[in-house]
Amino acid sequence: MNGAESLVRTLIDAGIETCFANPGTSEMHFVAALDRVEGLRCVLGLAETVVTGSADGYARMAGKPAVTLLHCGPGLANGVTSLHNARRANAQIVNIVGDQATYHRPWDAPLTADTEGLARAVSHWVRTSMTARDVAGDAAMAVQAARTPPGCIATLILPADTAWNDGAVPAPPLKPATPSPVAPDLVRSIAATLRKRPRALIMLAGAALSEPGLRAAQRIADATGARLLTPVQISRMARGRGRPAVDRLPYPVDRALEVLKGVEHLVLCGTKPPVGFFAYPGKPSTLWPKEATLHVLARPEQDLVAALEALADELGAPREPVIRDLPAPSPVTGRFTPEGFGTTLAALMPENAIVAEDAVTSGRQLFPLTFAAPPNDWLQITGGAIGCAFPLATGAAVACQDRKVICLQADGGGMYTLQSLWTQARERLDVINIIFANRAYAILRGELTAVGATPGRASTELFDIGRPDLDWISLARGMGVEGARADSLDAFADLFRAACAKRGPFLIELAVP
Amino acid sequence: MNGAESLVRTLIDAGIETCFANPGTSEMHFVAALDRVEGLRCVLGLAETVVTGSADGYARMAGKPAVTLLHCGPGLANGVTSLHNARRANAQIVNIVGDQATYHRPWDAPLTADTEGLARAVSHWVRTSMTARDVAGDAAMAVQAARTPPGCIATLILPADTAWNDGAVPAPPLKPATPSPVAPDLVRSIAATLRKRPRALIMLAGAALSEPGLRAAQRIADATGARLLTPVQISRMARGRGRPAVDRLPYPVDRALEVLKGVEHLVLCGTKPPVGFFAYPGKPSTLWPKEATLHVLARPEQDLVAALEALADELGAPREPVIRDLPAPSPVTGRFTPEGFGTTLAALMPENAIVAEDAVTSGRQLFPLTFAAPPNDWLQITGGAIGCAFPLATGAAVACQDRKVICLQADGGGMYTLQSLWTQARERLDVINIIFANRAYAILRGELTAVGATPGRASTELFDIGRPDLDWISLARGMGVEGARADSLDAFADLFRAACAKRGPFLIELAVP
Repeated sequence: MNGAESLVRTLIDAGIETCFANPGTSEMHFVAALDRVEGLRCVLGLAETVVTGSADGYARMAGKPAVTLLHCGPGLANGVTSLHNARRANAQIVNIVGDQATYHRPWDAPLTADTEGLARAVSHWVRTSMTARDVAGDAAMAVQAARTPPGCIATLILPADTAWNDGAVPAPPLKPATPSPVAPDLVRSIAATLRKRPRALIMLAGAALSEPGLRAAQRIADATGARLLTPVQISRMARGRGRPAVDRLPYPVDRALEVLKGVEHLVLCGTKPPVGFFAYPGKPSTLWPKEATLHVLARPEQDLVAALEALADELGAPREPVIRDLPAPSPVTGRFTPEGFGTTLAALMPENAIVAEDAVTSGRQLFPLTFAAPPNDWLQITGGAIGCAFPLATGAAVACQDRKVICLQADGGGMYTLQSLWTQARERLDVINIIFANRAYAILRGELTAVGATPGRASTELFDIGRPDLDWISLARGMGVEGARADSLDAFADLFRAACAKRGPFLIELAVP
Repeated sequence: MNGAESLVRTLIDAGIETCFANPGTSEMHFVAALDRVEGLRCVLGLAETVVTGSADGYARMAGKPAVTLLHCGPGLANGVTSLHNARRANAQIVNIVGDQATYHRPWDAPLTADTEGLARAVSHWVRTSMTARDVAGDAAMAVQAARTPPGCIATLILPADTAWNDGAVPAPPLKPATPSPVAPDLVRSIAATLRKRPRALIMLAGAALSEPGLRAAQRIADATGARLLTPVQISRMARGRGRPAVDRLPYPVDRALEVLKGVEHLVLCGTKPPVGFFAYPGKPSTLWPKEATLHVLARPEQDLVAALEALADELGAPREPVIRDLPAPSPVTGRFTPEGFGTTLAALMPENAIVAEDAVTSGRQLFPLTFAAPPNDWLQITGGAIGCAFPLATGAAVACQDRKVICLQADGGGMYTLQSLWTQARERLDVINIIFANRAYAILRGELTAVGATPGRASTELFDIGRPDLDWISLARGMGVEGARADSLDAFADLFRAACAKRGPFLIELAVP
């Protein structure tokens, strides 16, 4: 058996089911092995940022590793931005990257690149197999590494000769680490603080934003008056009616400082203390009050749900959290406003949808506006590399074939990853893509004003993505996805309802004045 | 003056005229400085691989550095593949990459990434400025580094506070190094060998493929019977009628071995000895005969034209090379064949065009077929990262506004960089984009057969980019570029003639059976 076949068999034995791929010549033996061995679903992306971003969306929804197959240094490089977001989301991903044969590398052929160096920038674990016999063991370790809580990026680089040489045997799966528990003393100490009902804020991320995590957190809030909040961007969150309505920290530094003002105790569960997305002259890097006391209830790799439940129990909180009964909203008519859109989306969203959001300036108020939506899972951009809603939605739809996926993508970001639409068409994925067409890098206009500058020739040239306007209906058609334009929220509502009534990908270009 | 303004003034003083950009928040003060200071043309790309690939095309044609403006780690990462090609082309590029403020970096905000690590993978020179006062001097050095023969990638990383802090002053330009001459003794020694008229081959790259370089090389060939050849992929070459007709080394290893068989002396001028693009089981890594003697007439950073002229003079070759008088070809009709297409292109190409080629399997025979085209400059993919014809053509058209640019782009590769079309529309660039629509990663089908495998379910899934077919006319329309489909060479000829008769971008989707 050659190294490539031992790799495929090892991955399948380790429970891997899906491979997002954009292979090249150095991955040819891996593809040939996929032809021989049944058991891995291959999903092609026409650009690597789609491949790795889809793997992120898949991993967030499936709760298990996705595998990617990438072509040596440049192929991996094209996938780095989506991996950057995935790393910040603690997604479980195993990247398989082909490379020059071990003995060919010193000759520096044109495609030779610093594959390991590029991989290190976005991976928790990197290894290059050196012989065919190493491949299976290294692959089992890569899967184990990806499964290390809270979820890691593992990159296995396979020189071509390790794939084609014989003498390999598949390796058995390795047991992944389990999340470490939280010390009872720590829980008691935090409970003692919160019992005094100080002005406390609990920041929740990762598994703390699952339904059990949120319910436990709400019990703590009920018992102590502590506020609950998520970081600016979240990996995955159980949201909608019947679930605790937890808002997120605002992106603009001034608004974040307002929200955190007066907090005496900041309790962290699965997240770092909040810092600004960027620094600004005269504004602080860290956003919590200097006089506040920080408590780490649980680090991201610990058992977050158990920690919250232990704290709620320690506080003697009733088993059932108090969840506000929110009336279902009604669709709004007229031209686009962020408020009107959020309310309309909450009104029309189907039950059990998955929302992938990278709406940037059009989406800043979406969280509170959709508290009353039907129950859903909400995924966001996590590393700030825009354009991720398209591939996240694509991967989530591969993972959850029986759920409607709603992709909320700003137009500027969408142009980085528009190739995702082709994969949605190829795989007939059930995704409604909503493009916020404001025809500008609107966030940058705001940032320019924030630094006190007056817009001039260059910034107009660089922030305006009209002239010519992007025609998303044509772009979607070019990749086999049907679409339509909505100039008002009424028109949007009609298109959205129609798209919900059928299966398969659809795109709505929503005019944002 | 703040650091950003000192940077802009330093770049302008150093002769930089064009900035290809996709900025973000950390580059805001640089954009604000561009608003205040006149002198740099800003060209927006909607994906960074377009930005850096256009800079490559610009630098190859302008013979001077292009500047890029990129957004911290992920923005740079998106531009790495095009920089990989640019590095192999010895293009002169100065990347300006914004980053987290120096004091904000330790807080590990979401967009924080290993910017230096990513830059190192594709740069000859990397520096991070640490104060506003450093920025101008570092920028002057970056331009000097980019101009170091034969052309380098220099990446200057600017933490946001080095851009916004005051106290900076512009720095004067630094004199770039000049190409070192070739020792007369070496020229005499190689002349002595060639004079015996052995079976010699001279491989030419870089400036050796300029018209003066090629004419000198042809004189050597005339005097000694030596053959002339280029590597598989070239950065820029003066081609067409009235110029020496030099073919390139074939890509497939077996054919390359045939071409190099029997060579007794291999003379290198601006290139490394030829090696396989990839390794294959049972095939050699190095392609020249083991018994051949290698002569390095000049390394890439030396004065290649002077070296060739010195060798021709030493051999006593007549001043005028013998250049075959090739009859202008006639267009071919009927369905697409690589031969028919090449002949038709040679027949219809306007005088003094620039050709940017990443035609992959559709373009392998283009070189000999276009010997009889009108004089032109030909640019190719140089690092193997496909999709580069789109951005190369875009940048070349920015550099040479008075010349027609012909972009030969295979469809698989084109999907990596299709956003280039929008920049062509925005800047009204005079580019005819020809898409070879074979609806497959056809090169990979060949590679799979080459490794002895039988195509199966996975390879069909991964190499076929139809289902759904890409509709390039819609894709182009979506970005403001007019286009039309050609199902035959006759139809292609009509569309090409019409596109030549007007200015501005156009796209022809050419059906490749």
